Amino acid sequence: MHEEKRSPVTSEVEFRVRYAETDKMQVVYHANYLVWCEIGRTDLIRRLGASYAEVEKLGVSLAVVDATLRYHAAARYDDMIRVRTVLLDARSRSVTFKYTIENAETGQRLVSAQTTLASVNPEGKLVSMPEKLRRSLEAAIA
Amino acid sequence: MHEEKRSPVTSEVEFRVRYAETDKMQVVYHANYLVWCEIGRTDLIRRLGASYAEVEKLGVSLAVVDATLRYHAAARYDDMIRVRTVLLDARSRSVTFKYTIENAETGQRLVSAQTTLASVNPEGKLVSMPEKLRRSLEAAIA
Amino acid sequence: MHEEKRSPVTSEVEFRVRYAETDKMQVVYHANYLVWCEIGRTDLIRRLGASYAEVEKLGVSLAVVDATLRYHAAARYDDMIRVRTVLLDARSRSVTFKYTIENAETGQRLVSAQTTLASVNPEGKLVSMPEKLRRSLEAAIA
Amino acid sequence: MHEEKRSPVTSEVEFRVRYAETDKMQVVYHANYLVWCEIGRTDLIRRLGASYAEVEKLGVSLAVVDATLRYHAAARYDDMIRVRTVLLDARSRSVTFKYTIENAETGQRLVSAQTTLASVNPEGKLVSMPEKLRRSLEAAIA
Repeated sequence: MHEEKRSPVTSEVEFRVRYAETDKMQVVYHANYLVWCEIGRTDLIRRLGASYAEVEKLGVSLAVVDATLRYHAAARYDDMIRVRTVLLDARSRSVTFKYTIENAETGQRLVSAQTTLASVNPEGKLVSMPEKLRRSLEAAIA
Repeated sequence: MHEEKRSPVTSEVEFRVRYAETDKMQVVYHANYLVWCEIGRTDLIRRLGASYAEVEKLGVSLAVVDATLRYHAAARYDDMIRVRTVLLDARSRSVTFKYTIENAETGQRLVSAQTTLASVNPEGKLVSMPEKLRRSLEAAIA
Repeated sequence: MHEEKRSPVTSEVEFRVRYAETDKMQVVYHANYLVWCEIGRTDLIRRLGASYAEVEKLGVSLAVVDATLRYHAAARYDDMIRVRTVLLDARSRSVTFKYTIENAETGQRLVSAQTTLASVNPEGKLVSMPEKLRRSLEAAIA
Repeated sequence: MHEEKRSPVTSEVEFRVRYAETDKMQVVYHANYLVWCEIGRTDLIRRLGASYAEVEKLGVSLAVVDATLRYHAAARYDDMIRVRTVLLDARSRSVTFKYTIENAETGQRLVSAQTTLASVNPEGKLVSMPEKLRRSLEAAIA
């Protein structure tokens, strides 16, 4: 993945559309944009100095509780895609990300999305985020 | 798929969670609920006397333009799932569905969702829906 | 899922092709047949009186170590699919299944496949299968 | 995707495991390795000076007719993966690729695979490959 450095609170990742991600309408199947959003927020968390894989080793997961997607134009096989992710809000038990997915070559906007994630333990109960992650997220908002 | 008959405007489909649909959080990966919504609306369209596969043979596709999901509780591997789908709105070029996804055995609500789809031709341009589909959808609203 | 009873060692499950499972070639994406094989063997294990979900609660998973697929014809969106699964071999630490995937309406053979799975603990080490599962599998072979 | 140049007949692509690719066994779901193989062969074809997206615009698709996978070790979330793809055989209507999937950081071999693809027209009939693609493939073998 090619990644450009921008402000500490923005992530930009680029990748090509996989054949597996298309459907018989000849475009990317709509559910896959949620997968791309997840790639974006994982990258953003990594830029903040945390690693989501490490966070989960502490027994805390970020579970999606809310997702909104608006589809403007379709991505196609082999297109180069760019996902920009920013942090909208961070609290002790939840965090909200905003995404813009665009064609990396033409700049055309494809999808705008927003997801809120809650911090849960392995039993699915709401818990406070690990202190380090929380501080990183809050610093990124400020 | 086991299907119960209800009002003509409601679809209920049931199926088991596939192993492939889970993720390392031990629950269903959040993007898969959009796939389940699609199963629900395909079934609803079939109940209205149309077949989405037939609609596409006329050169018209229903492309998702807007999706909202609220996640209440997690589905797990091998759970029996029920997707209830109702039609909220139908226009000449768009249609809105509402979904309730629940655990079929306990009745627990898992996800509430809503999607709006636009009627497009193979080039992705907005077009009116085939007359037969449109009439079926409008009758289901009334 | 509609299921016919046959010999105790055969499973037959039927389901419709999901839109999400197609690709831009207008047919089912080839990797999805492995997902369908998994549906078949889960059903076969259930028929033998075990439940794969229960097996995993004992801390043992069946991990695929070998898979072979031969593609004869393509499945398409909304086709009704039938997966027949039989047990080829069962040992203390591994089990081999054979699958025939066909169009349930025309009987046309789509894919023949075979997978061998090894019994592993959460660390991925080979372990003996839980006694009950092993006995069920061996009885099904005999 | 970071790509190293090697001999003209080898492709190496690297990418991180997506959360969506894991399953409740805490490892990558076995069917996803076929998706990764496809990424490898697309890259190999691009290195040969062709583009698979362009090939399909000529009305010819490469459909998988045979796949064999051997799973040696499991990939996990966020692991950096390397897929090495080489061309084993190329004929007028079919082509065979061989893949080695490994952990890019440790070099550990995860999966060895092989797929044969047939050149088909939109109706699924066997046809000769476009001349340019065929010559590129044959040159890569020699």
